[in-house]
Amino acid sequence: MTTRLDHSIGDALFDRAQRVIPGGIYGHQTPAFLVAGAFPKFLSAAHGCRVVDPDGHQYIDFMCAYGPMVLGYGDPVVEAAAERQRRLCDVGTLPAPVMVELAEKLVDITTGMDWAMFAKNGSDGCTWSIAVAREATGRDMVAMVGGSYHGVHGWCNAFQRGFPDGERATVLTFSWNDAASLERLFAAHHGKIAAVMITPFRHEGMHDSELPTREFLDSVRRQCTSNGAVMIVDDVRAGFRINIGGSLQHWGVTPDMTVYSKAVANGYPLAVLLGADSLRTPAQGVFYTGTFATQAVPLAASLATIEQLIVRDAIVHMDRVGRRLCNGLAQRASAAGLAVTLSGPPSIPFMTFVADDGGFDRSRTFSAECAGRGAFFHPHHNWFVSMAHSDADIDAALAIAEVGFAQVLAEHGADQA
Amino acid sequence: MTTRLDHSIGDALFDRAQRVIPGGIYGHQTPAFLVAGAFPKFLSAAHGCRVVDPDGHQYIDFMCAYGPMVLGYGDPVVEAAAERQRRLCDVGTLPAPVMVELAEKLVDITTGMDWAMFAKNGSDGCTWSIAVAREATGRDMVAMVGGSYHGVHGWCNAFQRGFPDGERATVLTFSWNDAASLERLFAAHHGKIAAVMITPFRHEGMHDSELPTREFLDSVRRQCTSNGAVMIVDDVRAGFRINIGGSLQHWGVTPDMTVYSKAVANGYPLAVLLGADSLRTPAQGVFYTGTFATQAVPLAASLATIEQLIVRDAIVHMDRVGRRLCNGLAQRASAAGLAVTLSGPPSIPFMTFVADDGGFDRSRTFSAECAGRGAFFHPHHNWFVSMAHSDADIDAALAIAEVGFAQVLAEHGADQA
Repeated sequence: MTTRLDHSIGDALFDRAQRVIPGGIYGHQTPAFLVAGAFPKFLSAAHGCRVVDPDGHQYIDFMCAYGPMVLGYGDPVVEAAAERQRRLCDVGTLPAPVMVELAEKLVDITTGMDWAMFAKNGSDGCTWSIAVAREATGRDMVAMVGGSYHGVHGWCNAFQRGFPDGERATVLTFSWNDAASLERLFAAHHGKIAAVMITPFRHEGMHDSELPTREFLDSVRRQCTSNGAVMIVDDVRAGFRINIGGSLQHWGVTPDMTVYSKAVANGYPLAVLLGADSLRTPAQGVFYTGTFATQAVPLAASLATIEQLIVRDAIVHMDRVGRRLCNGLAQRASAAGLAVTLSGPPSIPFMTFVADDGGFDRSRTFSAECAGRGAFFHPHHNWFVSMAHSDADIDAALAIAEVGFAQVLAEHGADQA
Repeated sequence: MTTRLDHSIGDALFDRAQRVIPGGIYGHQTPAFLVAGAFPKFLSAAHGCRVVDPDGHQYIDFMCAYGPMVLGYGDPVVEAAAERQRRLCDVGTLPAPVMVELAEKLVDITTGMDWAMFAKNGSDGCTWSIAVAREATGRDMVAMVGGSYHGVHGWCNAFQRGFPDGERATVLTFSWNDAASLERLFAAHHGKIAAVMITPFRHEGMHDSELPTREFLDSVRRQCTSNGAVMIVDDVRAGFRINIGGSLQHWGVTPDMTVYSKAVANGYPLAVLLGADSLRTPAQGVFYTGTFATQAVPLAASLATIEQLIVRDAIVHMDRVGRRLCNGLAQRASAAGLAVTLSGPPSIPFMTFVADDGGFDRSRTFSAECAGRGAFFHPHHNWFVSMAHSDADIDAALAIAEVGFAQVLAEHGADQA
């Protein structure tokens, strides 16, 4: 039996929630995606890389709010910039000057991108980018990697329920790191594909992450160009943890459009659509807006976040502490005689147990034990590190992980030779 | 020639914007929707009911950020509640307890609604509500009033560019205040219509607003019930300015689902989907989420906003100052010999010139002159008043409007008899 904390206050809150919210908690935060009884259901406080549940238990958080927290919860420099803007104005009848400053900054730092537009969700950005590509090409079809998550809109909603088939009629799928599968789509739908959307690495849930091969990225880039299709990178999840110029710059490839959200404003709600000059006029042709799209405080927070990511050399830091985490986990698993797979970029790491063989039984035991001892590792979704994770935080989490591995051994036995 | 302010600082900023943002400013805030040269393009500050442009000119704002500002920009009680939550946590790996408190409050005050879920945009809420209705009914089709604005998603995007026809294939349209036109849809698509979506009053742009007839609302309600379709009210724009229990309560009609956004958190980005108990299980069946959907600060701001709307009797206040504005405008127009139409609920008023005959030439002259003298009236989109608009603010705006009417007379001549 894994270590279990007393969650009675949080559980009582969840009982109340179930009366007034379908399922109590929904979407990516649903308790159904975690381990019943082992994880908290709510968080009452968050500072730096630590979160506190309603029963007062503290956790080193390796989810970072599923990505947005990149400098630390409540980062003082970002909060000060947000507060300065808040005293002037936030949502308004017209946008605030900070919108221009942020667009200039994003265009300046992002390779190949000449303009920026703003929204509220990653879903908004991905759908908008496709609309721009359709407007640019006069074509309807979109190619994406099967199983990739690009949000919850009808064309890509993973669970599909509630959306008619017609909304997916223009969506084609190919396979990750398989350039030939995209070639086949272009051949079968010659002159009809408006856009190819990929993530910088494959980070599908319930799956080891997979980095792109250079050959794959080069081929996607080449195929988009030769077929007159727009290459879009959904950098919503990975953005600002791999390369400040856009995650694909790590592999030296430049897309035509980039979608950011999550970490772009250290937790303030913002999505950004960036595009090359050739797509400027089509972007003007598509009507996309929202009451809060140009809300000023998140824009000011984003400007400060980007400046601080650069000043603090945060991507280098996250790569380093991510490696410390991954190496430490690999060593401790190995010492326990357990084979694990560490995948993804070090700053967005993930671990599975080889003996789980695509299931997540050991992952659930491990993450439940870690949760009971104060480290929040999701059982089957990639993790995130941040600028706020110090070496000491990583080492504290590794000490907890060591007990987690022991518990896996106790519950599931040693790996078969 | 209307009075023109010096906008050189704002115009220089717009030049910069055009280099890094397609169109410089996009969506509902584009300068193309206002009067070139007469209106500011950016706002640098906002307090109470007043906004300040980058050149330092102050305006009494009758757009209220297109609705969200309902208690006043920077309302101290809402800001204090937001700040208390901000010090604890905002976006997080799990939701904060305030999500439950707000859901309980919304369910408590909103007639006929038993559960709540949260998102970021009105578009999110409207699309989500339709997905829930489809899941509940096993049907695909949706009926909406032709010309109504329900957001920018593919199924309802007014400009359509960038979205394939297939996304609109399930959408049927009927006519406002014309119950028979809906009857014809139900007859022609018997057993296939999942939902009927209406706004509480017709507030289409470039059009006088139209209140619903009681007969129309009763018939929509009856037709939905007898045909097993879900009645959804898009209360995104009107919500919290007509009736605290849901805008349709003003006419005594209760829908099956209600979508709120805009004013629900006095400017903090939030959308809410509310539903009757019968739709609880279908709502759980649809996967809809977003990284920032349960962000805690907007939820805390919403709780404070709703409490303050009640404590301050804000809806009564807005109705009263809205009537003062409308009556004052009607009197001054009449005194100038100009026939105007004041339409919509007093708290969401709109004025057109009869002699414009569906065009907006006089409206543009009027609004340009008012902008030049410090009152922000949109030429062809409905306006909003707020709790922060005092009698003195209304009277100051009416004094400006009087000059606006004189300018209309000077430029366009007296109305023909």
